[in-house]
Amino acid sequence: MKKIQEYTQLIEESLTAQNFNHQPSELYEPISYILSLGGKRLRPALCLAATDLFGGEVKKAIKPALAIEIFHNFSLVHDDIMDAAPLRRGMATVHKKWDDNIAILSGDAMLVKAYQYVAQVSPEILPRVLELFSQTAIEVCEGQQYDLNFESLDDVKEEDYLKMIKLKTSVLLGCALKLGAFIANASEEDAQAIYDFGLNIGIAFQIQDDILDAFGESDKFGKLSGGDILNDKKTILMIYAQSHSHEIGKWFGDKKEAEEKIEAVKKLFVECGAKAYAEKRMHDYYDKAIINLNSISVKSEMQQELADFAKYLILRDV
Amino acid sequence: MKKIQEYTQLIEESLTAQNFNHQPSELYEPISYILSLGGKRLRPALCLAATDLFGGEVKKAIKPALAIEIFHNFSLVHDDIMDAAPLRRGMATVHKKWDDNIAILSGDAMLVKAYQYVAQVSPEILPRVLELFSQTAIEVCEGQQYDLNFESLDDVKEEDYLKMIKLKTSVLLGCALKLGAFIANASEEDAQAIYDFGLNIGIAFQIQDDILDAFGESDKFGKLSGGDILNDKKTILMIYAQSHSHEIGKWFGDKKEAEEKIEAVKKLFVECGAKAYAEKRMHDYYDKAIINLNSISVKSEMQQELADFAKYLILRDV
Repeated sequence: MKKIQEYTQLIEESLTAQNFNHQPSELYEPISYILSLGGKRLRPALCLAATDLFGGEVKKAIKPALAIEIFHNFSLVHDDIMDAAPLRRGMATVHKKWDDNIAILSGDAMLVKAYQYVAQVSPEILPRVLELFSQTAIEVCEGQQYDLNFESLDDVKEEDYLKMIKLKTSVLLGCALKLGAFIANASEEDAQAIYDFGLNIGIAFQIQDDILDAFGESDKFGKLSGGDILNDKKTILMIYAQSHSHEIGKWFGDKKEAEEKIEAVKKLFVECGAKAYAEKRMHDYYDKAIINLNSISVKSEMQQELADFAKYLILRDV
Repeated sequence: MKKIQEYTQLIEESLTAQNFNHQPSELYEPISYILSLGGKRLRPALCLAATDLFGGEVKKAIKPALAIEIFHNFSLVHDDIMDAAPLRRGMATVHKKWDDNIAILSGDAMLVKAYQYVAQVSPEILPRVLELFSQTAIEVCEGQQYDLNFESLDDVKEEDYLKMIKLKTSVLLGCALKLGAFIANASEEDAQAIYDFGLNIGIAFQIQDDILDAFGESDKFGKLSGGDILNDKKTILMIYAQSHSHEIGKWFGDKKEAEEKIEAVKKLFVECGAKAYAEKRMHDYYDKAIINLNSISVKSEMQQELADFAKYLILRDV
């Protein structure tokens, strides 16, 4: 994964080199702030990796890759308002550091900025790139709405949960990779295969995120561990547990004994097999992703890098 | 103005023919709702008018014109959250009818939809169109942020106020017209002249809006008359009155005696010359707009239509 690490580094440097400091400062400071909080820069690095994989000029993919990262951060800023989240990457969220109005408006400006960056592809591919980008952006909104809807639903089906995380998380990984493929003038089939790789690895990634939210270490993760449990969030763990544990229901709505609740629900997740099931499903999607990756017509060392990367995503502990 | 009226009609019909009803309904129903509330459809009609003016195919301008209208409505949905506005066009605002989260997310989806519509221009002009559209969108965000900033400022300069309304309102009129010019392959000079016409008429329009908010009839306007006065809003009337009336300051912050406050401040606006001054400034911008319009190289009956339209905007009482 040496090259992908180089690409995350390249993205970090390119992002730092951008100037988002314009007037009025209330609009632009939150943009610089959220983008400076770090994060894994996975999505833009994947865009560069896909351009590399298909033999394109990686330099040409930087601005569109930044568009993906800016879009991702836009969605975080708005989601954090909706979820009333106090922390993001261990730091105050934009709406907490400033206020809701500033977070709404800075987020809007970031969405527009993302379009300004993605529009910097060569004119021949611009229509296709825009179609992909906008379709993805709409799907991310749909995913977030489903996620919000699930909050007030008692029984969410696993199928609906998977659809939600596909829309909310995976399509953007697929988009990042397909965008990179477009920039390298890959064939339509290859571009679709790398998109599907992104979709499947994205679902695996999100399932791992759910597992880490319950079982990960709080300080590494940069947000409170057990937050999903505390908020009765319908993760794949909870959905499985609801139909495999009689005791899980009694913890719903309980917010008083936070630590006790988190520990008890985690114990139930293990006992009823929810944790093992989630891990199994995560590996299923990982396997699908590898099949997608191997179906690509070109052969390059980047293929192995992406396979390693996929493995890293499901084995990571942060 | 017969043709412009036909164009607003054409926009209305085209908008009705669009299908925004997808799943999840919580995301899409607010989009259909806000777009069905009417409004004057001035911006998209101006886009068609500009295509017509420069001898282009009006049919080709419909989708991009709808993009302008969808963008405008996106900004209304988000602004209404920020302003905590209960009514829009006499009906409940999206965040009141649903909630803030749905209004944020539906607004986001509308911004993306606007890009999907504007991307439907011919590929040759797409890069220029996108640049214009994104630049305008960013400026509208900047304008809204300045407007929010003014709420907590005691002394706003007229110059800053004019910059704010230019960004928040006028650039979108300029953009709509320039977009229409691009679609008709107008020269760069003509495209700029019609943009400037839009800018100036937009400022005149907004000044008239301020005047109507104070002196217009409530039921016609579809929102509460005197709302700006009640909220101590720094309109051009208020800014002028602050430096020409000793009595105006004592009403600041008063929310108890709403009717009494509105009547008293209106009286002061007349007595200190603020109303007359605002009307004068509005006519100045109207005059500039007419000069821009007359500088255009082509001659068509649409020029007279646009001149009539500009006159209508500053003489309207709703």
